[in-house]
Amino acid sequence: MTKSTENYLKAIPKDFTFGQSENDGLRLDSGRVLYPVNIRYETYGTLNKEKSNAVLIFHALTGDAHIAGKYSPSDKKVGWWDEMVGSGKPFDTDKYFIVCSNVLGGCSGSTGPTAINPISGKQYNLDFPVITINDMVQAQNRLMEHLQIDCWLSVVGGSMGGMQALAWIDNFPEKVHSVIAIATTSKLSPQSIAFDWVGREAIMNDPNWNNGDYGDNPPEQGLAIARMVGHITYLSDLSMESKFGRRLQERETYSFDFTRNFQVESYLEYQGQRFVERFDANSYLYVSRAMDYFDLSLKGDGDLTRALKHADAKFMVISFSSDWLFPPHASEEIVKALRNNNREVTYCNIESAYGHDAFLLETETLGRLISGFLKSRSEEVKNA
Amino acid sequence: MTKSTENYLKAIPKDFTFGQSENDGLRLDSGRVLYPVNIRYETYGTLNKEKSNAVLIFHALTGDAHIAGKYSPSDKKVGWWDEMVGSGKPFDTDKYFIVCSNVLGGCSGSTGPTAINPISGKQYNLDFPVITINDMVQAQNRLMEHLQIDCWLSVVGGSMGGMQALAWIDNFPEKVHSVIAIATTSKLSPQSIAFDWVGREAIMNDPNWNNGDYGDNPPEQGLAIARMVGHITYLSDLSMESKFGRRLQERETYSFDFTRNFQVESYLEYQGQRFVERFDANSYLYVSRAMDYFDLSLKGDGDLTRALKHADAKFMVISFSSDWLFPPHASEEIVKALRNNNREVTYCNIESAYGHDAFLLETETLGRLISGFLKSRSEEVKNA
Repeated sequence: MTKSTENYLKAIPKDFTFGQSENDGLRLDSGRVLYPVNIRYETYGTLNKEKSNAVLIFHALTGDAHIAGKYSPSDKKVGWWDEMVGSGKPFDTDKYFIVCSNVLGGCSGSTGPTAINPISGKQYNLDFPVITINDMVQAQNRLMEHLQIDCWLSVVGGSMGGMQALAWIDNFPEKVHSVIAIATTSKLSPQSIAFDWVGREAIMNDPNWNNGDYGDNPPEQGLAIARMVGHITYLSDLSMESKFGRRLQERETYSFDFTRNFQVESYLEYQGQRFVERFDANSYLYVSRAMDYFDLSLKGDGDLTRALKHADAKFMVISFSSDWLFPPHASEEIVKALRNNNREVTYCNIESAYGHDAFLLETETLGRLISGFLKSRSEEVKNA
Repeated sequence: MTKSTENYLKAIPKDFTFGQSENDGLRLDSGRVLYPVNIRYETYGTLNKEKSNAVLIFHALTGDAHIAGKYSPSDKKVGWWDEMVGSGKPFDTDKYFIVCSNVLGGCSGSTGPTAINPISGKQYNLDFPVITINDMVQAQNRLMEHLQIDCWLSVVGGSMGGMQALAWIDNFPEKVHSVIAIATTSKLSPQSIAFDWVGREAIMNDPNWNNGDYGDNPPEQGLAIARMVGHITYLSDLSMESKFGRRLQERETYSFDFTRNFQVESYLEYQGQRFVERFDANSYLYVSRAMDYFDLSLKGDGDLTRALKHADAKFMVISFSSDWLFPPHASEEIVKALRNNNREVTYCNIESAYGHDAFLLETETLGRLISGFLKSRSEEVKNA
């Protein structure tokens, strides 16, 4: 096997469990206490002596802790932001200690609806408490304590990951030196809430869903529909036009039936099918609901400027011109609120046709911006 | 009953049936022949002696022939474009003879999948042939012959209704004096095709759908999801923001579950529920597919200018600034193609926050534009 000698970034999944009793459990926004809680995470690079080079990166709705590299040389796929994390890359693992954890409520190792409820001894399913972005961040804080890190050099995320970055500032302003919030918002728009609603309805109306108790027979068709709706919102009209246009898939003329004719139909079908192989339907309900509920302005009684009063981290806010799910004006609101508080903030609206997906695709531009920003933050910390 | 003396526009549903044998049936784009074909229609006003004042108006995806007025004084609802059609209104029934018919494939009186297949003696359901916008227009032409009208003063429609107006020009350029195409396109974008796909998937994945043979037990949940997806695309981000924002429905705080919390969720749920009471799921499949397949440029081998070479009617093209389903640039393409052919075309992009729904809501602005346009066309015809 020549592959075994290949040079690759080695990823190792780790688990941290806390809350063996209710006393030590996670007190949630809903008032419930969750215990035990496992957090699946991965780290890359080395924490320096001063513990000043730790960067926490958050994944989006359907992501996981596996941000970069491979578990073994024979892996076909690398982590979801591999172009951004590694030796010599923007999140340079020769310089920074990178941490990424699967969110609470997720289905890739961290405690979520597929976990065992210690009270019933059975899988939670719909008995799992509805969690919030704050709850996710509170769980990450326990991981931070476990890793004996006092302050993150930066907290970084796109989409729902950006919400977590903002929630960190809200919950633990003293533990964050800087924030990189990409393609995100301080609160979902009613249009996004509506799309989330439709996705959940599709899951919950699938007869296999069975009020969440689907065992080995998951509501695949409903989950696939939710995913297809999502995918439409991740692309821009323009990118769909250039990617698919009205081109037909493996045919010369219309079939005059309801099977896939257009390439865009084939794409959606494929995305739906691939997704159900890797994601849990109940998790989709919980994590999307957490996004709906996130509203940073609530801490300021609806006033984002007031809500960000204590945010004295350095900010980089990035949006993409064709992103209509987390549109530039949502980023501009955050920037405005920070500037109203006389905070230091760098804002970039990147011209891109890729829509919301740009935060995963425009890695060259993102990389340039981020590596410069991190370098400046490192120097600040060193000189402090 | 004092109501019976109320002054109201009396609407009378009428039926025209043709094609008692295959010979006289409707030859469809798919190659199949449909017979018999019933067209449910309504007329308002009086056809003048010269037969020069007839206006054909088309409904959109889920509309019907009942465009204005009431069937009886006790009716609670009026026709879908009642503000536009009536005595003294833009489509002035004192001046014009207005015709509106339910589309082929529909479920409001015209032949569609709920009709009886003369060969099997049973309801067509999925045996109904897949129809196109051209097929709808060919059926309307039979109605035109039946009404002994030689030329429409104008053919008028919004959304899918606008597609029919364009298809009239394509099929019968000599039978149309003018066209009013509102919030429409010469072909659906891949994004719109994608939304249609998701809607149909939701219907066909509902276990009640049963490959179209659902009898009295229709796939209501799937159809409701299709409708909810549709409704999101009919509104603009801005109009959802002002109509719903993130306001909660009949509650002070989040419920921490998956029931409706936000007003926008409640709105969608309501729209879905109301829709399944009045619309047939199979019809939704057929009519949305007809929209996907419509591509006016095909006649010009993909070149819209060439496709519109023979279009010598007078055109009014209207779009709405916040319509992202049938965006202004789709109207501009039509206008450009007409101008390339040196055709007379008036184009108005109306500033409106209502999104695609604007074609049903901006009746004051639409009315002013349309009444002026129709007046000029009438004078032309009189002076001809």
